[in-house]
Amino acid sequence: MSVVPMRWAEDGLLLLDQRCLPLETTWLTLNDWQGVRDAIRDMAVRGAPAIGIAAAYGMALAARSKVERSEAATGLAASRPTAVNLFWAIDRIMALDTWDYGTVLREAQAIEAEDRACNERIGAHGAGLVPDRARILTICNTGSLATGGHGTALGIIRTAHAQGKVVQVYACETRPRQQGLRLTAWELLQDQIPFACIADGAAGSLMRAREVDLVVAGADRIAANGDTANKLGTYTLAVLARSHGIPFVIAAPESTLDPKTENGALIPIEERDPTELLEVGGVRVGPIGCPVFNPAFDLTPGKLIDAIVTEQGVHRAPYRFR
Amino acid sequence: MSVVPMRWAEDGLLLLDQRCLPLETTWLTLNDWQGVRDAIRDMAVRGAPAIGIAAAYGMALAARSKVERSEAATGLAASRPTAVNLFWAIDRIMALDTWDYGTVLREAQAIEAEDRACNERIGAHGAGLVPDRARILTICNTGSLATGGHGTALGIIRTAHAQGKVVQVYACETRPRQQGLRLTAWELLQDQIPFACIADGAAGSLMRAREVDLVVAGADRIAANGDTANKLGTYTLAVLARSHGIPFVIAAPESTLDPKTENGALIPIEERDPTELLEVGGVRVGPIGCPVFNPAFDLTPGKLIDAIVTEQGVHRAPYRFR
Repeated sequence: MSVVPMRWAEDGLLLLDQRCLPLETTWLTLNDWQGVRDAIRDMAVRGAPAIGIAAAYGMALAARSKVERSEAATGLAASRPTAVNLFWAIDRIMALDTWDYGTVLREAQAIEAEDRACNERIGAHGAGLVPDRARILTICNTGSLATGGHGTALGIIRTAHAQGKVVQVYACETRPRQQGLRLTAWELLQDQIPFACIADGAAGSLMRAREVDLVVAGADRIAANGDTANKLGTYTLAVLARSHGIPFVIAAPESTLDPKTENGALIPIEERDPTELLEVGGVRVGPIGCPVFNPAFDLTPGKLIDAIVTEQGVHRAPYRFR
Repeated sequence: MSVVPMRWAEDGLLLLDQRCLPLETTWLTLNDWQGVRDAIRDMAVRGAPAIGIAAAYGMALAARSKVERSEAATGLAASRPTAVNLFWAIDRIMALDTWDYGTVLREAQAIEAEDRACNERIGAHGAGLVPDRARILTICNTGSLATGGHGTALGIIRTAHAQGKVVQVYACETRPRQQGLRLTAWELLQDQIPFACIADGAAGSLMRAREVDLVVAGADRIAANGDTANKLGTYTLAVLARSHGIPFVIAAPESTLDPKTENGALIPIEERDPTELLEVGGVRVGPIGCPVFNPAFDLTPGKLIDAIVTEQGVHRAPYRFR
């Protein structure tokens, strides 16, 4: 286990600031729940499962400070709107019959440990879908940094690579925040998995050239009918994969399932600041006054998803989560 | 006519350095053909028609210096491999029965003037394909900066906007070199055409949300059967457009047609330096040692292209250029 996105220490939550990767390894020390909320909102930590784990630790910090627990829950839940794991983790802490610091902390630690174990199972189930000598295309970062460890879609790639089945990974850059180029590339380099980064626009021509055998992506929320909110660009990959006859697979823990949400049209899609597109690494690229439409996520209809892999196994369309 | 990518002056070719836009307006003064070759190779000037015009002026500079004309022709032709206008313009100069400086210069100026007139006709023909209250999506820069003026795909948008038919343009950022965000946005702002820039990955979800009525793109080379090489990402847009029932239109001068090339598989696709993806504005983003696959163009089969608009009119599939 090479990388973790956060570590609990006696004095608080140590959080790897993912905005500084891959060129700098900076750890933030967060001592109160507001610091965790800000870190989630400002994307020092990102990835649906990792956001849930961070929020659970944020609740532990609130319990330690004897803050009113509904205040912390409300504040943390407002940090980002799309990833359902955030609300799931907060609800799980709220369901405890105590606000005792030690109990809340142990629950947060359990959420983290369970997520890692869960990802290992996702990897094992998903690797069964990977053919020999596979060339796999993926988007965003769904690895150790996005989770409690190992990863979801990237966890499938890791497990399949350990089984000797992966000859090439294509990591989409994933504009605007470039999590593929910054984070997935960094993890793949550390694990010595063969790969190349590509501009997001290159996915289509790679598929047409028969260079891709499988597409795997993560999820921020999955509705009852399998409609999936994930990083902007995922829907485009699903359309391309279907039109080229390439299997398209979503990987996520069961905590990403949101059966109360009937279909994807009901999932709120976060729109983020235009500067995410207009600036890169603090350097202005776009012209002054340039209007931008910058949704963080898109929706992929369940009917375009060949399989949804969770720790419980491989779900197949038509999906009917409950 | 707001913008020109180059101007001939007594002492040589003044070239707007497009790598510095939109934040800086820097003009290069090129006094010899090698300077023009380097400017094309290093993308100070880009866009298939503009490359052709620049190469013609490069030939004029060579004639002025009394350089052997085949030496200049060979050197300029080697600057970039995909855009056929480059070879077309050089061939046109080579077809002159003299290497007299004045004659070569007048031919280069004619190529430039004809390109602008040609774009006006492309705009007029193409605007006939634009519905009322159109929302148009485009990629890369195909405007005044890419041509002798007005533009090809962006020329259609300009003409249709002047006719009151365009309510919104979506300009894809166009990674890796961000010509949409840097150049198209800059031109659209100057012309006060309503638009928003989007990450390349946003095109699919915009189409699914029925926010796009038409896709227009340029071309670097069009084979006899209509297969079109254009900026990386164009093929992805064509697949998305077809799957959403949205018309997909290519705009280019007849000089971009390459009937000697039977189909797209025979068009060489330039692969460019990995740093184009790994760095933005001189700032390193990707990890050290990150492998990159960075083709500059992709191929869109003619059968996905609903119309190819040139100065001669609107060509429809099946294409059979000769």
